[in-house]
Amino acid sequence: MGAVELIGVVLFLGVLCAESKYMVYNTSAGIDAGKINVHLVPHTHDDVGWLKTVDQYYVGSNNSIQGACVQNVLDSLVPALLADKNRKFIYVEQAFFQRWWNDQSELTQSIVKKLVNSGQLEFINGGMCMHDEAVPHYIDMIDQTTLGHRFLKEEFGVTPRIGWQIDPFGHSAVQAYLLGAEVGFDSFFFGRIDYQDRIKRKKEKSLEVIWRGSKSLGSSAQIFAGAFPENYEPPPGFYFEVNADSPVVQDNVNLFDYNVQDRVNDFVAAAIAQANITRTNHIMWTMGTDFRYQYAHTWYRNMDKLIHYVNKDGRVNALYSTPSIYTDAKYATSKSWPLKIEDYFPYADRANAYWTGYFTSRPALKFYVRKMSGYYLAARQLEFFKGRNDSGPNTDSLADAMAIAQHHDAVTGTEKQHVANDYAKRLSIGYTEAEKVVASSLACLTDSKSSFGCGDPTTNFQQCPLLNITYCPASEADLSHGKNLIVVVYNSLGWKREDVIRFPVVNEDVTVHDSEGRKIESQLVPIVDAYVDLRKYYARAYLGSSPGDVPKYWIAFTVSVPPLGFSTYTISASKKPGAGSTKSSIYKFQEGEKPAIEVGEGNLKLTLSAPSGKIINYVNNRNLVEESVEQSFSYYTGYNGVNDKAPQNSGAYVFRPNGTYHIKAEQASLTVIQGPLINEVHQQINPWIFQTTRLYKEKEHVEVEFIVGPVPIDDEFGKEVATQITTSLENSKTFYTDSNGRDFIKRIRDFRTDWDLEVNQPVAGNYYPINLGIYIRDSKKEFSVLVDRSLGGSSIVDGQIELMLHRLLLDDSRGVDEALNETVCVLDDCRGLAVQGKYYYRIDPLGEGAKWRRSFGQEIYSPLLLAFAEEDGENWMSSHTPTFSAIDASYSLPDNVALITLQELDDGKVLLRLAHLYEVGEDSDLSVMSKVELKKLFPGKKIAKVRELSLSANQEREEMEKRRLVWKVEGESENQNENPKVVRGAPVDPKKLEVELAPMEIRTFVMEFEVDLMSTTFKRIVDA
Amino acid sequence: MGAVELIGVVLFLGVLCAESKYMVYNTSAGIDAGKINVHLVPHTHDDVGWLKTVDQYYVGSNNSIQGACVQNVLDSLVPALLADKNRKFIYVEQAFFQRWWNDQSELTQSIVKKLVNSGQLEFINGGMCMHDEAVPHYIDMIDQTTLGHRFLKEEFGVTPRIGWQIDPFGHSAVQAYLLGAEVGFDSFFFGRIDYQDRIKRKKEKSLEVIWRGSKSLGSSAQIFAGAFPENYEPPPGFYFEVNADSPVVQDNVNLFDYNVQDRVNDFVAAAIAQANITRTNHIMWTMGTDFRYQYAHTWYRNMDKLIHYVNKDGRVNALYSTPSIYTDAKYATSKSWPLKIEDYFPYADRANAYWTGYFTSRPALKFYVRKMSGYYLAARQLEFFKGRNDSGPNTDSLADAMAIAQHHDAVTGTEKQHVANDYAKRLSIGYTEAEKVVASSLACLTDSKSSFGCGDPTTNFQQCPLLNITYCPASEADLSHGKNLIVVVYNSLGWKREDVIRFPVVNEDVTVHDSEGRKIESQLVPIVDAYVDLRKYYARAYLGSSPGDVPKYWIAFTVSVPPLGFSTYTISASKKPGAGSTKSSIYKFQEGEKPAIEVGEGNLKLTLSAPSGKIINYVNNRNLVEESVEQSFSYYTGYNGVNDKAPQNSGAYVFRPNGTYHIKAEQASLTVIQGPLINEVHQQINPWIFQTTRLYKEKEHVEVEFIVGPVPIDDEFGKEVATQITTSLENSKTFYTDSNGRDFIKRIRDFRTDWDLEVNQPVAGNYYPINLGIYIRDSKKEFSVLVDRSLGGSSIVDGQIELMLHRLLLDDSRGVDEALNETVCVLDDCRGLAVQGKYYYRIDPLGEGAKWRRSFGQEIYSPLLLAFAEEDGENWMSSHTPTFSAIDASYSLPDNVALITLQELDDGKVLLRLAHLYEVGEDSDLSVMSKVELKKLFPGKKIAKVRELSLSANQEREEMEKRRLVWKVEGESENQNENPKVVRGAPVDPKKLEVELAPMEIRTFVMEFEVDLMSTTFKRIVDA
Repeated sequence: MGAVELIGVVLFLGVLCAESKYMVYNTSAGIDAGKINVHLVPHTHDDVGWLKTVDQYYVGSNNSIQGACVQNVLDSLVPALLADKNRKFIYVEQAFFQRWWNDQSELTQSIVKKLVNSGQLEFINGGMCMHDEAVPHYIDMIDQTTLGHRFLKEEFGVTPRIGWQIDPFGHSAVQAYLLGAEVGFDSFFFGRIDYQDRIKRKKEKSLEVIWRGSKSLGSSAQIFAGAFPENYEPPPGFYFEVNADSPVVQDNVNLFDYNVQDRVNDFVAAAIAQANITRTNHIMWTMGTDFRYQYAHTWYRNMDKLIHYVNKDGRVNALYSTPSIYTDAKYATSKSWPLKIEDYFPYADRANAYWTGYFTSRPALKFYVRKMSGYYLAARQLEFFKGRNDSGPNTDSLADAMAIAQHHDAVTGTEKQHVANDYAKRLSIGYTEAEKVVASSLACLTDSKSSFGCGDPTTNFQQCPLLNITYCPASEADLSHGKNLIVVVYNSLGWKREDVIRFPVVNEDVTVHDSEGRKIESQLVPIVDAYVDLRKYYARAYLGSSPGDVPKYWIAFTVSVPPLGFSTYTISASKKPGAGSTKSSIYKFQEGEKPAIEVGEGNLKLTLSAPSGKIINYVNNRNLVEESVEQSFSYYTGYNGVNDKAPQNSGAYVFRPNGTYHIKAEQASLTVIQGPLINEVHQQINPWIFQTTRLYKEKEHVEVEFIVGPVPIDDEFGKEVATQITTSLENSKTFYTDSNGRDFIKRIRDFRTDWDLEVNQPVAGNYYPINLGIYIRDSKKEFSVLVDRSLGGSSIVDGQIELMLHRLLLDDSRGVDEALNETVCVLDDCRGLAVQGKYYYRIDPLGEGAKWRRSFGQEIYSPLLLAFAEEDGENWMSSHTPTFSAIDASYSLPDNVALITLQELDDGKVLLRLAHLYEVGEDSDLSVMSKVELKKLFPGKKIAKVRELSLSANQEREEMEKRRLVWKVEGESENQNENPKVVRGAPVDPKKLEVELAPMEIRTFVMEFEVDLMSTTFKRIVDA
Repeated sequence: MGAVELIGVVLFLGVLCAESKYMVYNTSAGIDAGKINVHLVPHTHDDVGWLKTVDQYYVGSNNSIQGACVQNVLDSLVPALLADKNRKFIYVEQAFFQRWWNDQSELTQSIVKKLVNSGQLEFINGGMCMHDEAVPHYIDMIDQTTLGHRFLKEEFGVTPRIGWQIDPFGHSAVQAYLLGAEVGFDSFFFGRIDYQDRIKRKKEKSLEVIWRGSKSLGSSAQIFAGAFPENYEPPPGFYFEVNADSPVVQDNVNLFDYNVQDRVNDFVAAAIAQANITRTNHIMWTMGTDFRYQYAHTWYRNMDKLIHYVNKDGRVNALYSTPSIYTDAKYATSKSWPLKIEDYFPYADRANAYWTGYFTSRPALKFYVRKMSGYYLAARQLEFFKGRNDSGPNTDSLADAMAIAQHHDAVTGTEKQHVANDYAKRLSIGYTEAEKVVASSLACLTDSKSSFGCGDPTTNFQQCPLLNITYCPASEADLSHGKNLIVVVYNSLGWKREDVIRFPVVNEDVTVHDSEGRKIESQLVPIVDAYVDLRKYYARAYLGSSPGDVPKYWIAFTVSVPPLGFSTYTISASKKPGAGSTKSSIYKFQEGEKPAIEVGEGNLKLTLSAPSGKIINYVNNRNLVEESVEQSFSYYTGYNGVNDKAPQNSGAYVFRPNGTYHIKAEQASLTVIQGPLINEVHQQINPWIFQTTRLYKEKEHVEVEFIVGPVPIDDEFGKEVATQITTSLENSKTFYTDSNGRDFIKRIRDFRTDWDLEVNQPVAGNYYPINLGIYIRDSKKEFSVLVDRSLGGSSIVDGQIELMLHRLLLDDSRGVDEALNETVCVLDDCRGLAVQGKYYYRIDPLGEGAKWRRSFGQEIYSPLLLAFAEEDGENWMSSHTPTFSAIDASYSLPDNVALITLQELDDGKVLLRLAHLYEVGEDSDLSVMSKVELKKLFPGKKIAKVRELSLSANQEREEMEKRRLVWKVEGESENQNENPKVVRGAPVDPKKLEVELAPMEIRTFVMEFEVDLMSTTFKRIVDA
């Protein structure tokens, strides 16, 4: 084409898109203060995986499952926006946008940048996905948001202003204050709140509120939050997707079916209806829905006409808008708004439809995600110590996989099975690469005596991601012929840590030495049948082949590891028989033999009623807590509405029990394993539940490890398996559950703070998401349960805590259209998925539980990372660095602060996040302002620059605060000084380099270090 | 936007559309002689009405019925073509294209013109719609094609080269030779041929043939014709519409599900499979189907990749192509092709699924279309005489409505009811406007004694479109108080014509005078109950109110009208009682009274057996033909497959009888009406069939008028009502039916010329479309039946001719998804549609039937046009021009030539089409070269220029013939001189201005006249 033609083409396209019938539509309307303003917000909601995988959604494959192609959306959007400068669009999910962006030429990219600069295309939310708010860990939410936000900042120089969680199934306090206010959002919109709540809010015009999600941070982290009146779709009759059946605006008088006045009337009626439940004269219409705008032109063609003819009509004012424009318009009205605290859980979209099943759905995937979260945190530390390699291996693919897994149909378990497999596959690929980073970093760090370089590290560290199925090829090496096993134990926490580690060994008589050559006490714990079965089947399912001989024992021993560092241990065959590990004693209960058994080698003792297998007494000899504890299993049968007029099954989203069945433990199965470090009680509860109750000599909590499954479904009943731990605490319906693993929120059974609850589901309607833990208390004690993954839980009966561990079977008609029935296959042998996991409980005197919950909670999230090598001849300890800590040897983080991010960015700068772990008033000692000395965190480096950023690291914190809109709250003084002042950490003095952290505060920094020649050289060598 | 940005945008769009993942696909492949060439032909098949109306399809409304929006197709197509110059598209249906074109700016239009000029966008077929080939009249086919072709010529300067009848349900000889070869097409493609035929043709690689549709024009009007191997869709797995479920080509190695090799393998396999049943190494893939390319980008994105990767693979050669390129490639191989004669009717897509029901479906709509066809022809003549008024009223909207009505789901009756209503509404609107043209032209022509001007015509002529329901307000004026009724009778045929006209009158004693004041014999025929009922109900249904008093009589009298002219008659109340019209005698048969009744006032006499009501003898006293004739009714129950595994109902398309039921005539109902001009036999055959058998004194055929319906469906059985006329002719399974009202084709029961027929439907499989007539013959006689509309017919039994008159009830699963159950409602009173119509039969000595079939066929098609006025005081005859002929008073057209088009074009030139009415050998006198003297056709004008054009008037005939590809036919000599020479009319000598016409030849001319001041003035006055 020649240049003249080119110009012609552009004009043509403008005309083509903007005009129909040689007609120019006036789409230029702004806000009209005297009318109802209908903000038309063109959007698409693109699930980062659900019925199809993220890549299938992007390229538009597998359309027989769902017609959806994000590529089409973005391809068609750009010319549609170019055609009329008044048209606007918001784009949300960066996982898709980045896929598309990478496909585009520089020229396309430059045009899109212009559209972004002009405000026609606005990025909102801006994380990689629209994460769920119930089941992700807050660190994962921050990481996935940061990944998206930093991309947008780097590529476009923009910072999203709006939270847009339109689809997630209820909304968390952490989302509002942390992923909302703390990332600098001016407002936050969502589509799903409880149907009873919604009715009341419509009546009271309180769908739009000021939400203070954090008790501790209060008004300093509040946000304007709007729930949509119905959902995130247009009003009925205003869908304009290709093939949609809404009436198109037919304004060609030469054709039949001209309908302009009808459509204008429809528009005005819908606008007035919404205005009647909304404060101010601004209403928002979400013009789009899932995967729409495949041919954007079809929407804009009709919206152009609507704006034109509606404004010509004049009763209301219609305009192209965005949530930012809408927010600014709301703000400009200077109105006061109702205050909202706590959160929007649980969510029911109608009676008997509580979306509390997904708190547990796909518990194995949930565990995989949580495990990878801790691993990713540790791997980034080690990657930083070694120096990041942009061209890989690095932690980027794990970062991507983790980001996508936070999607509200990923870790939630509400996707189709093949999509769940895709998330797991991505995590596995990401892990495999990160594992290399970890191995090479540890090799570098151990390989040389120098702390600044590793020459050419030769150690090939093995890790054991399949330890949960008792499979660890590295530790299963035969040591009887003189080989020694080296175990490097890395601690990603900022505190020194003592813990018991364990892994399988094939030799029956082994000795453990520390790096000083001291022999360490160790215990051999037998690997019992339930675990052998698990190993055999799942190793084959995972690896494709049988892993060979089954080791007979776990070896367990206590390790001591410095903060952000490692220690090294040697495992060898005992020189003298019997001089090595202590074999556990095994006591199998024989009927009528002993009325009660006491276990526990340390302060904590449990007494079991041998005949019933139940714990009858819990006693801590240190703090003198004593309590009767009964732990049991039950299952709910899932409601099957196949014969109902309006069926509502229990399914992946919805928990709708239809009766509770108590599972009686099988008497004969009680086995007690005892040794110097660990005591275990093994119980085969029934043919498909095996439980180990484990006490560590040095710990004052009970660890319960369960294997649940394959859950039998021959009877065609869905089963939702729960465990109850019953105490005598008088908690008066009150319990506390965490918000995304961070703040604890008070829950009262059969009660909602915001409205008079009509109870129709006394169990499901009282379930809440548990990420960190749940606790109850009475006037004397508190009883806490911590979990290893997200799951649903409650206190259905006073004194009792309940956790749902596994669930299946039906589809609940929310779109998945596939039964929730997880299976694992080896060739043609498919079995129901068995879920293995742990929870931990402890009883403290009132007021003393928080320390355990917070500190041990960090240990659960960040388990010690084990790396194995063989000692081949030379003395490992003398030729390697056996212990290491990245921080000053004299220093560790305060007990109330965690390092939640330490990461070298691709520009060489270092991202640091520090989190205060306690809420205001949570602990008498630790709920105070704390302080971190940065110089001691980076002892070998000279800090050149520290800039505090927003939580998602895409803007200067100070600028963000300056920009922040100050909203008025109904009933509060407009004079900010009269309102309670929230104290937060002071700005960091560039000299002192000390970071103050107030309760629940998270502070994000980007650090630059003075060039360190040694370190640079070290990095180059590693990269080479 | 600035200019620089503009250029950026264009480049961007190019990149956006042509590139994915920053990848440039090589789409430039041309033909590779050494490989299988897969011609990818991107196309959309846009029904001009079917499940939705044409306007609904265009704007994309009513998508709940069918997701389809032609506007999207064309909007999205243009940027997609601009993005890559190798991409191609064909567009077919001009009704849609013109709607779109009218919506575009001049700039858009100029860009589209460039795409057309470059060959990226090619118009093929190019009529307003893809007309059906069974039920339209050839004049309508020509008109609708001309309308599209002339638009394309005027707007784009292009002439379509390819016939593209991919969806019609069988293919006609007239389509092949007249609407194919004679419009200058180089080839003709279609998708539907009989399943048995297709199997054989695949085996013999004879899907592609040279088709000689006309016995008379032979090789001079042959065409390369290709039936697709399956349908007009892509091979399975290669659909790339938005949301289609074919696997997209996923070539991004960074995403999962990369599938390039799989897709290339699929492509190659499908190509080889098709090549195996195709001659030459060229195969065509029709890349599209109904209403696809709503977002054209989705198709091209994938086709780009397929071309790129398939050609990289190298096993076959893939290219963007069009049917033109494909045709040229086929031609370039210089191969010989099998010869095909006759046609492709009837069509069955599988056993028991003969698409022969639609020959009759919606018989009332079919009549309306046919009636409007004749009216449109006459109206154009009158419009020309008066001078065309571009700004209206003119005949354009009737032209459009008629064009659309020819669509293969319009006049076929295979659309949904609301769409059938839409076609009727358009015809009605078009008629109403054309009626004004006719009225004002007649007013002009009658108003002044001058033949060149009409001053300011004041006569308001009324016409009576509802005469078929005995309703004519103009003629129903009460004449008893001295008012006279003026009737102007216009004859659009080129011959002088004598005929009996009739209309209802309220006065019982009226007199008819001709323009010379001579009293004319007239007869009053009683309006019987069946007609009164029809009038009452249908007039109310049509007009919304009751038409008032019912006149008691039809008045009938013989008129004599010059060619292309009119005569005027006066109807007045008789001055003397009894001196006016003759009242008919009425004889109601009383049982046992008379054994036989003879009717007929002229040469033709029928004898009826009074007890049975049946005709027992037919005798023509002139030519001495005598024959026993039995006429009867029956119905087939429609097959209802509701309980079948693979149900195949009888429905709108498919005729599948399930038993025949003879309808016995009700004895008591025989009434004989006799008078000097007309004799009628009235029979109430059963409660829902009324029949009039009518003889005219001056005519030698029998006219049968039937009212069928409401067909009772209380028994839930579909009924397909047929009439049989049985003679003793020994026709040996052989009968003749016309092709679109033109050539007669020999049919043999249970036999196909092209393959050994496996008979599974002995009735439905022998049905053929009848537009003009059907006849049988034996060694002595021929028995002909002519029809007033298209319907299905056959000769199922020797000696018998059968016509299907009306049908209902079920849906036959071909997409309509609606029962064929026509009803008419007055408020809430809905009744099954009653169908009224006529057919005509005659028995001639062998060899003498053609004259009647051809001449009287023209009279059926072009009934005399009646216009009424009141004589108000002054003497009409003296103050007006009472008789007129547009042609030289000494001249009329030869008996074997018809004027089928006389039309002033919008550029003021005049389109003239002359048609020879006889085939070679059809009549011993008339199947000869004929000659028309143009000067005598236009006596008042001086012919300045006559150019002969192609049939569709879009190119010079001479150039068309020069361009024509000369195909080789298998088994024929390559030396053209050795093959039988077809003689056609010689070029017109510009001096002599005589047009020669060989048998079956149609010649098309555009005439220019020297400016005629008087005439111009006349026109100006009329327009003013």
